[in-house]
Amino acid sequence: MLPTDPMTEVARSTRRAARSGRKEPVRLEPITIECVSPELDGGRYPVKRVVGDTLVVGADIFKDGHDLVAARVRYRAPGATAWRSVPMRFEFNPDRWLASFPLDRMGTWEFTVEAWTDRFNSWRSGLEKKVAAKQKVDVELLEGAQIVLSAARNTRSSAYRSSLQQVADRMRDETMSLEARARAALAPELKALVDQHYAPDDLTEYRHVLRVRVDRPAAAFASWYEMFPRSATDDPRVHGTFESAAGMLPRIAELGFDVVYLPPIHPIGRTFRKGKNNTLDPEPDDVGSPWAIGSEEGGHDAVDPKLGTLEDFERFVQRANALGLEVALDFALQCSPDHPWVKEHPDWFHIRPDGTIAYAENPPKKYQDIYPLDFWCEDREGLWTACRDLILFWVARGVKQFRVDNPHTKAFAFWEWCIAEVQRLHPETVFFAEAFTRPKRMKSLAKLGFTQSYTYFTWKNTRWELVPYLEELTQGPAAEYFRGNFFANTPDILHEYLQHGGRPAFRIRLLLAGTLLPLYGIYSGYELCENVPVRAGSEEYLDSEKYQIRVRDFDAPGNINADIRMLNRIRRAHAALQQYTNLAFHTSENEQVLFYRKAGRPVPAVVDGLVIPPSVDTHVTGGRSGNGEEGREVSGDDEPSLVAPPSWSSDADLLVAVNLDPHRIHDSMVHVPIEEMGIDPDEPYVVHDLLTGAHYTWRGSRNYIRLDPQQQPGHVLRVERP
Amino acid sequence: MLPTDPMTEVARSTRRAARSGRKEPVRLEPITIECVSPELDGGRYPVKRVVGDTLVVGADIFKDGHDLVAARVRYRAPGATAWRSVPMRFEFNPDRWLASFPLDRMGTWEFTVEAWTDRFNSWRSGLEKKVAAKQKVDVELLEGAQIVLSAARNTRSSAYRSSLQQVADRMRDETMSLEARARAALAPELKALVDQHYAPDDLTEYRHVLRVRVDRPAAAFASWYEMFPRSATDDPRVHGTFESAAGMLPRIAELGFDVVYLPPIHPIGRTFRKGKNNTLDPEPDDVGSPWAIGSEEGGHDAVDPKLGTLEDFERFVQRANALGLEVALDFALQCSPDHPWVKEHPDWFHIRPDGTIAYAENPPKKYQDIYPLDFWCEDREGLWTACRDLILFWVARGVKQFRVDNPHTKAFAFWEWCIAEVQRLHPETVFFAEAFTRPKRMKSLAKLGFTQSYTYFTWKNTRWELVPYLEELTQGPAAEYFRGNFFANTPDILHEYLQHGGRPAFRIRLLLAGTLLPLYGIYSGYELCENVPVRAGSEEYLDSEKYQIRVRDFDAPGNINADIRMLNRIRRAHAALQQYTNLAFHTSENEQVLFYRKAGRPVPAVVDGLVIPPSVDTHVTGGRSGNGEEGREVSGDDEPSLVAPPSWSSDADLLVAVNLDPHRIHDSMVHVPIEEMGIDPDEPYVVHDLLTGAHYTWRGSRNYIRLDPQQQPGHVLRVERP
Repeated sequence: MLPTDPMTEVARSTRRAARSGRKEPVRLEPITIECVSPELDGGRYPVKRVVGDTLVVGADIFKDGHDLVAARVRYRAPGATAWRSVPMRFEFNPDRWLASFPLDRMGTWEFTVEAWTDRFNSWRSGLEKKVAAKQKVDVELLEGAQIVLSAARNTRSSAYRSSLQQVADRMRDETMSLEARARAALAPELKALVDQHYAPDDLTEYRHVLRVRVDRPAAAFASWYEMFPRSATDDPRVHGTFESAAGMLPRIAELGFDVVYLPPIHPIGRTFRKGKNNTLDPEPDDVGSPWAIGSEEGGHDAVDPKLGTLEDFERFVQRANALGLEVALDFALQCSPDHPWVKEHPDWFHIRPDGTIAYAENPPKKYQDIYPLDFWCEDREGLWTACRDLILFWVARGVKQFRVDNPHTKAFAFWEWCIAEVQRLHPETVFFAEAFTRPKRMKSLAKLGFTQSYTYFTWKNTRWELVPYLEELTQGPAAEYFRGNFFANTPDILHEYLQHGGRPAFRIRLLLAGTLLPLYGIYSGYELCENVPVRAGSEEYLDSEKYQIRVRDFDAPGNINADIRMLNRIRRAHAALQQYTNLAFHTSENEQVLFYRKAGRPVPAVVDGLVIPPSVDTHVTGGRSGNGEEGREVSGDDEPSLVAPPSWSSDADLLVAVNLDPHRIHDSMVHVPIEEMGIDPDEPYVVHDLLTGAHYTWRGSRNYIRLDPQQQPGHVLRVERP
Repeated sequence: MLPTDPMTEVARSTRRAARSGRKEPVRLEPITIECVSPELDGGRYPVKRVVGDTLVVGADIFKDGHDLVAARVRYRAPGATAWRSVPMRFEFNPDRWLASFPLDRMGTWEFTVEAWTDRFNSWRSGLEKKVAAKQKVDVELLEGAQIVLSAARNTRSSAYRSSLQQVADRMRDETMSLEARARAALAPELKALVDQHYAPDDLTEYRHVLRVRVDRPAAAFASWYEMFPRSATDDPRVHGTFESAAGMLPRIAELGFDVVYLPPIHPIGRTFRKGKNNTLDPEPDDVGSPWAIGSEEGGHDAVDPKLGTLEDFERFVQRANALGLEVALDFALQCSPDHPWVKEHPDWFHIRPDGTIAYAENPPKKYQDIYPLDFWCEDREGLWTACRDLILFWVARGVKQFRVDNPHTKAFAFWEWCIAEVQRLHPETVFFAEAFTRPKRMKSLAKLGFTQSYTYFTWKNTRWELVPYLEELTQGPAAEYFRGNFFANTPDILHEYLQHGGRPAFRIRLLLAGTLLPLYGIYSGYELCENVPVRAGSEEYLDSEKYQIRVRDFDAPGNINADIRMLNRIRRAHAALQQYTNLAFHTSENEQVLFYRKAGRPVPAVVDGLVIPPSVDTHVTGGRSGNGEEGREVSGDDEPSLVAPPSWSSDADLLVAVNLDPHRIHDSMVHVPIEEMGIDPDEPYVVHDLLTGAHYTWRGSRNYIRLDPQQQPGHVLRVERP
């Protein structure tokens, strides 16, 4: 008849239950805490931020009846044992609680929300009203004294304890007038003291501890350059080396890039090696695809002897770093039939009933030069650990960024484990997912830990393709965890827009890539407008560098080095181009002209319909908490921030206009969002084209643009106010 | 250096981890299962349905690589120990898996999603392509034979086992031609056998078991009538009784109501009793407010002796039931100072420092006739159990519906516990939340278990108020759990629209309440268009029945009994008026005329942008599952359905037009959604006004309406096609 004992349920409730996360059909929470943001998939995955960001936390919090509720965000920095807390403030409209705190170091932060009944202020507010209505408040004063005394019992400071006890005594002192006793009770000093020392009796914690992955700023703002070191040569018969490749670094640095990404640098398999243009009958001197990893000379932890030694590679990294460049390596978890693991660990592959190892296939196509790993093999412990150790091996040699080849063909669970493992030890490590697959899969890889992601950008060339895609990336839910990196080309993707659009097409796509998102990149040869496909209708390059050495004269006529140099310089000088969610498209009356604003100052966050100005108070208090168990102060294991916030850059608003048609001049009336930008509709203002140095005087919202793709395919306009 | 052992993590993964729900920083799931719908607050609360509904479950499911994935929904009926399952099918666009199953009994159903790699069909599909490409498939046949043998090992049927073994033998039989072996492997019979008997080796379960609360249909479709039994008298000096009130039941039944709701029927306190019109100085014969519960004569489990005995009440319930009416009681968890609990359990109340019990207050206002209970008192086990037992007490006396007074002033956790407890024993019980508070709190009460909810309907009188509110209720996320019940008036709410709009206002609001939502109600006197407030600007009635007996002549001139009778008859005859989410507003060119469609046939569900036709295959299989631990067949504890689906009613579409202005005639052109309704734009069609019997011939979308509030404030048009 009375099957469940409510007391047992009550005892189970509150924070221990909330922490454990175990399933309870009915949770007994004195306070309701709902709809906490940011929360991704019910807390299953962390959202992403960078060092220097402020995390704004929102929550719906309420309880029965009329008592006041108080709430705070508790949070813990990566590696810290102590929790800190920041009070939440209530916004009547839209009935939401908010707080924020600064994210000042890399790693995975934890946070949650807790709330309690604010008995003192509930009581105090009633007392004020009763005093104003001249009601007798003798019993009220006794009630208030009980709350004050409970605060006194809770404090560790004997000075505060005796202050609180003294006020409580006055409140109960029948020799004093009720008026004097009420005055003592309502003194602001008492409120401050009790607020600080009162221990909630119904502290309720939100049922999830949520996570924020905080990366270094360079993980979210960078210009990438991809190059094959073996092509660093003047003679296609002479294999480039780390040393000759290092000779190209000053040029790349001077163009303003931040990251030099090298396709795999490991020994290349011989068995079923591919010849030039992906043929199956290589000539003896064909160098093969770097993605066919492993030979007698070693596997993923070795370098191709033709490129040099490990020490040569380390010197290459040092040269790059000295020039302000980071080196990113390709991480392609697959093996050529000659990879040492094939002999040492055949059980890490799919072994067929005839004893052979399964090669990759997409029936009826066969890829006999590649053996996929079996991530769910019996010895997965050995395999996963070995794979993680490969990353740690290269991290130890100065590589902090990894472009991961086809992560969607390896176990997702492996990546989640591996990235967490590596970043726990080396939080500065960047994982860049090269997954061109269905959107939900790409998003899932970003959720589970990839720092950056390749995108569909190369295939979005019209306004009708670009606008919704960019809005999805930068304004939709994915903006919390998916950081697109807009490569304008790759060794696999020479889009027909580039094939047919000539030099103007390369300049247009460069400008879009580098101004739409803070992360962008090009693959070597882009600056020379290389645009010949292997055959009509293909996105593969003719004489692809994937299978052969390509010698280039980077100063050849028609190069767009000046565009690249200027773009990267502007990007470094303007905060507007270093942020992800500050993009908004505005009307251009000619659909061939794309017009958008990148806001320079931090954009107000919108949390459930409420606009949170960036100036939100970040009053951080120490780790005080309602019960002794976790009242520890912030302790010494809080290391100082490992990475400084990005250096100063202009916070001006930028307006960008790009002619999307590489073949024709277009003009357009563009609509400047003057109201949002605080520009008076009747006053002229100056827009300064950062690409050319030209200044234009505009007035009102609607202004004229004319773009000749042969001359100037776009404007990057800094708005300069009187 | 190698801090976490991946193998330990792997061993933790799969279903046990998923079930336990405990926090794991990294979950090792071979298959990704995300965005399962319907899911409310990450599975924290159940969604709501009624018996007869089909639950459509959606999920995003994928894994690395190219193997085929298979998935199913596992679900468990209330009280059953066995799980059943239904296969999910994949929709390429929008990349979503779907399944559905029928909800054929009341209670809390559980469901989750599980997925696995479909190794046999992945292999089979490759074999087909290789055979077509005339590739050698000898090793492939050996691989397939291994899968077939694993299915053989898994089956319990020796006949199937030997069939499977025989085919595997043929596939490996080197004396046969490869073609014959491949034919054996590709036989559809083999596919069917393996599909049925194969045991997945990477079965992955979604991390939550989700819940659906399934109510009886009458919980979601009903017409309510509220009456004070003490007013069932011809003489205000003679207190009505259960017996005299039973005399009113035939009239209420004849008007077509389903539920008769009585304000509290318990003994009424004497201390601080309120007089007529809520005065503080009652006369000796004033009857007091029924919400001041408890006197020497008993508390919440007693009846006011003036109304009769408990046996009289039980007879009242029987009379009602015999007329097809259910009786709903008020459940107001508060006590008058004379309530027996005040003496027996003073510790269940707030005891003040002077030893007195705290009365209700909203400083500086005092409500000295009411003592609130302290739901978090030391003896909360005793209090909560006693409160639940009150419900069980009245359930045992035939009451299945409870209108809960001000639930938002009692602990939310108490309600969640109490409702679950009662419904576990008596799943037919309905809890109707009378919470007029901020929207998030009202929604939270619905989430935690309230079957129905009062709404802001009385305050929504213009098109600009009604349309967004109804769209929020019926089309927004709240439609999954919040069932509004549109009371047109209550003893507390006589809106100024009714005060000033005369009889037309009452007819208009009745028509809106009864056609916009399947749940609606009126409070006694509405049918007489009682519209005099206690004073100008108040929503309280003059001579409110809350404080005195009111004698009424229900056949008095100007009554709207005929409207009520007709509306309730139409509601019972049309499925369109029995559903919640089938409402859509359409253009009316005069904003004083509201125009909407209630679709008659089940509306296709929209799951993440995909339209699911109601005919979705509900192929239900037995409880077969991938591992022995839960391969139990559906067992005998599956009781038959307790409640039959609603009886037949017309599934015609209804178009409703209502003149919102009680003072003036309005005409309008209304836009019929002929395309959605499958009406040819060039063919005439007939709309049949169910209120008047008139027929109109319309053509195309735009048609003329003229509504005179004195005559006919609205149309309820059944669309009759040629």
